[in-house]
Amino acid sequence: MLDTIIIGAGPAGMTAGIYAARAELSHLILEGGLMSGGQIINTSEVDNYPGLKGIGGFDLAMKFREHCDQCGVRFQDGRVTEVKRQDGGFLVCLENGESLLAKTVLFATGATHRKLYIPGESEYAGSGVSYCATCDGAFFKGKETAVIGGGDVAVEDALFLSRICKKVYLVHRREEFRAAKALVNRLRACENVEFVLSSVPVRITGTGQVEGLVVKGNEGEKELPVSGVFIAVGMVPNTGLLKELVSLDEAGYVIAGEDCKTDAEGIFAAGDLRTKSLRQVITAAADGAAAIREIEAYLNSR
Amino acid sequence: MLDTIIIGAGPAGMTAGIYAARAELSHLILEGGLMSGGQIINTSEVDNYPGLKGIGGFDLAMKFREHCDQCGVRFQDGRVTEVKRQDGGFLVCLENGESLLAKTVLFATGATHRKLYIPGESEYAGSGVSYCATCDGAFFKGKETAVIGGGDVAVEDALFLSRICKKVYLVHRREEFRAAKALVNRLRACENVEFVLSSVPVRITGTGQVEGLVVKGNEGEKELPVSGVFIAVGMVPNTGLLKELVSLDEAGYVIAGEDCKTDAEGIFAAGDLRTKSLRQVITAAADGAAAIREIEAYLNSR
Repeated sequence: MLDTIIIGAGPAGMTAGIYAARAELSHLILEGGLMSGGQIINTSEVDNYPGLKGIGGFDLAMKFREHCDQCGVRFQDGRVTEVKRQDGGFLVCLENGESLLAKTVLFATGATHRKLYIPGESEYAGSGVSYCATCDGAFFKGKETAVIGGGDVAVEDALFLSRICKKVYLVHRREEFRAAKALVNRLRACENVEFVLSSVPVRITGTGQVEGLVVKGNEGEKELPVSGVFIAVGMVPNTGLLKELVSLDEAGYVIAGEDCKTDAEGIFAAGDLRTKSLRQVITAAADGAAAIREIEAYLNSR
Repeated sequence: MLDTIIIGAGPAGMTAGIYAARAELSHLILEGGLMSGGQIINTSEVDNYPGLKGIGGFDLAMKFREHCDQCGVRFQDGRVTEVKRQDGGFLVCLENGESLLAKTVLFATGATHRKLYIPGESEYAGSGVSYCATCDGAFFKGKETAVIGGGDVAVEDALFLSRICKKVYLVHRREEFRAAKALVNRLRACENVEFVLSSVPVRITGTGQVEGLVVKGNEGEKELPVSGVFIAVGMVPNTGLLKELVSLDEAGYVIAGEDCKTDAEGIFAAGDLRTKSLRQVITAAADGAAAIREIEAYLNSR
C-alpha cells in the first residue's frame, strides 16, 4: 500500500511529487493527459512564475517534469474512474481495469476555464484570447481589450486591465451584473472603460492575432477593435470523482483551506480544484508542497 | 500616495512586487538587507523550488531579483522604524528620517531560525548544519544525522529524516517532550532513531564538513558521529513593527490566512511571518501573489 497517490500532473501534482519523493514517501502520480503540466501546456507564455520570467508554458511544464524525474518522482499514465475506501486506505481504479491501493489520496486535477465556443476562440487562444487577466494582462499594455462576463471575476479583470490598457470594453449579455455593486460602481468610474451591455459575443476576428470582437446587441452586430479578448465566464473544477467523497461548494470546488485537507480523512486536494481566491501556477505549486506536509502529519498520526 | 509599500525583499516580497508591477499598482519594495533574497541568500542549495532544481540560494535570489527588474518592480534600500496610520493610509518611516505614504502596507519581513550559539554552528551552516529538514533532509540520504529540539517540529523532523537517513539521533535537553505524545510514540517505534535525552549540544566538529556533534549529558560529554545537524529549536518571526498594529499569535506570528489579510484594514502579511504550517520558498512566493490580489480587492472596495 503506497503512502499516497497523487491524481493529476499539473504544477500542484508535480510539486507534491517533488516533496513526496524528497520525504521518501512511497507515491505515484497518475496522469490522465498526454503530457505532464496541466493547463500551462496550452499557455504560450508564463510571465509570473518567479525566477523564470517569460518562459513558455510548455517549457515550464518540462522544467517541472525534469525536476520530478531528477528527484525520482514516479509517474504512471492512467485515467482514474473511481476512488473508494478499502483496507483502511483507498482503492484507486483506472480506466484500463488496474487498481492501486494507497493510505492517502491527493487530488490535483485542476479546473478548466469555461469556454464560449464561438468562432475564433480556440483559433486565437494564446494569440489574443485569454482566460486569465492576472496572467496575461501585462502583455496588452497600451492596447485595447475586451472582457466578457458579468460576475466578480469579469469586473475585477476589467478593473485590472483598465490600469494597463488604453481602453477596455466590458461585454455582458444582460444589463444587470452578478458582480458586487461596489466593484461595478468602481468600474463605471473608469474613464477608459466602455460597457457593452445586453450584448453577446459572436466571433473573434483577426489574422494570426486577434484584431476584433464582433458582438450582437439590440441594434445588431458591431465589431470592437480589440487585440485582446479576456473570457471570464467561470471555471469548472475537475471534481467529478470527488462528489461522493468530500464536501464541494456550490460551484463544485473542493472545500479545503491552504492545508489542502478536505472534510474526509485521508483525502487531500491541492491546486485549482479547491476553494481559494487566486489560481496561479505559483499558488498551485505551493499547495502541492503544503499537501504533502499535511499527508506526512496524517501518516504520522495514524 | 502609493497603492502599496512592500516591506521585505525575500521570495514573498519580490513575488508581491512582480504581481504589483504587472497589475500596474504604484508600489515600492523596501529592503533592509544588503541584498534581495531574504533567508535564501544564506542557503547553499535550494532543491525544492519547482522548475529550478538544485539552484544555489544566492542564484535563486538573483533570479527573483532579475524577474522583478524586468517587470519594472521598484526597490528602495531602507530600514523601517515605524508604520502608522495617516491621511487614510499609512506613513512608513525609515531609519534615515525619510517617510513614505501608501494606501496599504504589505509586511514580508520573514522569520529567523533560533540559533544555539555553540562552536561550529555558524562555521558549518550549509555544510552540514541546517535549520530545515524539509529543505535539506534529502541531501543526507543514507547518512547519520542529529536533530536538536523537543517540540513538534523537532520530532517531525526526526521522523522525516528517519525515512531518509541511516540513523537519526534526537538530542533534547529534557526527558519530557513538548511535542505531541502520538508523534513521540511514533518516533520511539523507529528502529534507526536513538534518543539522546537530558543532553545539551556543546559543539559541532568537522573539517570543512560536519563530522560530529558533541553533547553533554549526565555522564559527561560524548560525540555523535553525524554528518548532519538539524537545529529545530524554534523560529522568531520578524514582527516587531507589527506589535501595535495587528494581532499576533503567542509565538509572535501575524495571525493571517492564505489571503494574507491581517485583522487591521489595509495591512497585509505574506510569507514566513504569518501563521502557516509550511514555511518554504514556494509557499512564501504564493503568499506574495495572493496578497497583491487581496490588496487589489481592498483598493477596489475603498
